[in-house]
Amino acid sequence: MLLPTREAMVFLKILPMNGGNGKSSYANNSLLQKKMILEVRPFLEDSIKDAFSSGIPSCVKLADLGCSSGPNALSAISEIIHTIHGMSKRMNCKSPEFQVFLNDLPGNDFNNIFSLLPDFNEKLTKEEDDTLGHCFITGVPGSFYSRIFPSRSLDFVHSSCSVHWLSQAPAGLEKNKGHIYIANGSPPTVIQAYTNQFQRDFSLFLGLRSEEIKPAGRMVITIIGRSMEDPSGGECCDIWELLAESLTDMLAEGLIEEADLNSFNIPIYNPSEGEVRAVVQEEGSFNLDKIESFEASWDPFDDSDKYRGAENVANYVRSITEPTLKSHFGGAVIGNLFGRYADHLAKHLLMEKGKYFFMVISLTKK
Amino acid sequence: MLLPTREAMVFLKILPMNGGNGKSSYANNSLLQKKMILEVRPFLEDSIKDAFSSGIPSCVKLADLGCSSGPNALSAISEIIHTIHGMSKRMNCKSPEFQVFLNDLPGNDFNNIFSLLPDFNEKLTKEEDDTLGHCFITGVPGSFYSRIFPSRSLDFVHSSCSVHWLSQAPAGLEKNKGHIYIANGSPPTVIQAYTNQFQRDFSLFLGLRSEEIKPAGRMVITIIGRSMEDPSGGECCDIWELLAESLTDMLAEGLIEEADLNSFNIPIYNPSEGEVRAVVQEEGSFNLDKIESFEASWDPFDDSDKYRGAENVANYVRSITEPTLKSHFGGAVIGNLFGRYADHLAKHLLMEKGKYFFMVISLTKK
Repeated sequence: MLLPTREAMVFLKILPMNGGNGKSSYANNSLLQKKMILEVRPFLEDSIKDAFSSGIPSCVKLADLGCSSGPNALSAISEIIHTIHGMSKRMNCKSPEFQVFLNDLPGNDFNNIFSLLPDFNEKLTKEEDDTLGHCFITGVPGSFYSRIFPSRSLDFVHSSCSVHWLSQAPAGLEKNKGHIYIANGSPPTVIQAYTNQFQRDFSLFLGLRSEEIKPAGRMVITIIGRSMEDPSGGECCDIWELLAESLTDMLAEGLIEEADLNSFNIPIYNPSEGEVRAVVQEEGSFNLDKIESFEASWDPFDDSDKYRGAENVANYVRSITEPTLKSHFGGAVIGNLFGRYADHLAKHLLMEKGKYFFMVISLTKK
Repeated sequence: MLLPTREAMVFLKILPMNGGNGKSSYANNSLLQKKMILEVRPFLEDSIKDAFSSGIPSCVKLADLGCSSGPNALSAISEIIHTIHGMSKRMNCKSPEFQVFLNDLPGNDFNNIFSLLPDFNEKLTKEEDDTLGHCFITGVPGSFYSRIFPSRSLDFVHSSCSVHWLSQAPAGLEKNKGHIYIANGSPPTVIQAYTNQFQRDFSLFLGLRSEEIKPAGRMVITIIGRSMEDPSGGECCDIWELLAESLTDMLAEGLIEEADLNSFNIPIYNPSEGEVRAVVQEEGSFNLDKIESFEASWDPFDDSDKYRGAENVANYVRSITEPTLKSHFGGAVIGNLFGRYADHLAKHLLMEKGKYFFMVISLTKK
């Protein structure tokens, strides 16, 4: 049926990125994702060419899951359209029509994306020649941990920087006091709670998509993962631990409640390649064609001034977590929290370079 | 190609309803449209039953054109889903999936519609039994005077209170000084400019939809028309003439510019049944199954106090025209203008009842 209780919970617990065009908006703090989209471009292009090598349908149905708002929401889509249009020309076929489904949570700033469409269309018109078929952009509000598309309706699915978000923070994290993610030395129960939640969620995600993607349809997803097998040694542990330290400072000064800190855990998991492979194999609906990985600096501007670099990272983390933090701790603490966070980040960046470990995965529906 | 110049103009010239949830929002001033949707319900139900009498596809693709924001955006859709689900049960078939495309201009408040979806889904779950198939709601930003859907992709199209909006105010209205629509005694050039624009736009609308609707697919559209053949004697002329008088008062007081008033014409046309039939026949893609008409009071609350009634009408007209008026005359005049408009409306309503003449039309793609 429409919204199983579990999915209804997702709407309440997981909140979208910061909307609008302000200083803290996702739209203005998404250079990291933009760089990642550029980095992934050759991989994406190869997957598309492979997916449509034996023919292009008259209307190609594309989805971007967790599109968020701002210019990134349309950049991967424009890459995909460009590649398929190029293929159709080389095959001497008429360009297909494109129906594009941009998905994110219902609270996402879809108005912002839609306001970019006239410019997007104009740019597409200029970049492609006039053989390009109609391109129809639609917005699909809903959690990708529920069904969001009709059965066997999609040819190609793309998702960037979204599927490491869990459907909810794991239960059973009572022992994670003073931390908000897995930390160095976390007890096994905490690690287990996170890994279990990831396995359940990623398996659910694959199962749902396997109903929506046409047989032999393709999915390319990019996530922030970790390079080592030990979940408490991931590249991302530090970034959350520094935020936990900032919250702990505020607790010491009586600015937030202990119960609020203890009950807050970030609903993200950064899996290893082995974990991804295991879930794909276990779930069974998709063949894993290829995984590649690459590193990216926490600070997308790579500023040599570590204090400015720390500000950049703080702004980015704020743009993706503010709605979630606000709903838990109240709006009043946010400015103060991210000021402290920038300080903690600066100290860290003066000692070592902060790096993300990205994975890009191509899957084919069996 | 993507956006012919003409369509690009539509984006600039025609503006959507007032967004948000404020006092002047469309969402809070749309009782008239709600009453109309209720009035049209039996007609709509008959059309649906007729359209799907020989079978229901496994995924029914529905579009609502000019859905605007607020609760009305979903009420016709919920009617349509309810009727088709009832039919599938009576036919002892599995309920189809539903993919719903809610269309309006890119500036429409889609965030508002999407925020209503969790409640909409919950209500649907309660009203229907658990045999109801998945229902996928999407937003489609774009002018319906351009292609907005893939070829032959839609089973059923609904549009309420939208298709009387033209793609732009007609050209050649230099002689319409002091008026903003066809008025009693308008010169033939003014009437001709409006009727030509309607014929071009409605014919374009039908031609575009004929590419998007599957063969034998159905379209039900409700518009504000006029009961008499003479275009200068329509039920709607008065409502715009009273707004023109309010603007003229403001011109006399130096509050707006003469050039602004003379160049402003409302991009709406209220056709007669004869005009609608003629365009459908001439354009040739659709069979006209049925036209019905009914009247509705300007004041949807039918307040016996004519001053309160006038306020209601002014609020409604403000909610549908404010963005257009603001972009032409500037935002500063709006409050003043609608205060005066309410006075003019009250004087009118004390003398006679203001009525709209609605037409609902069922069309089948040949």
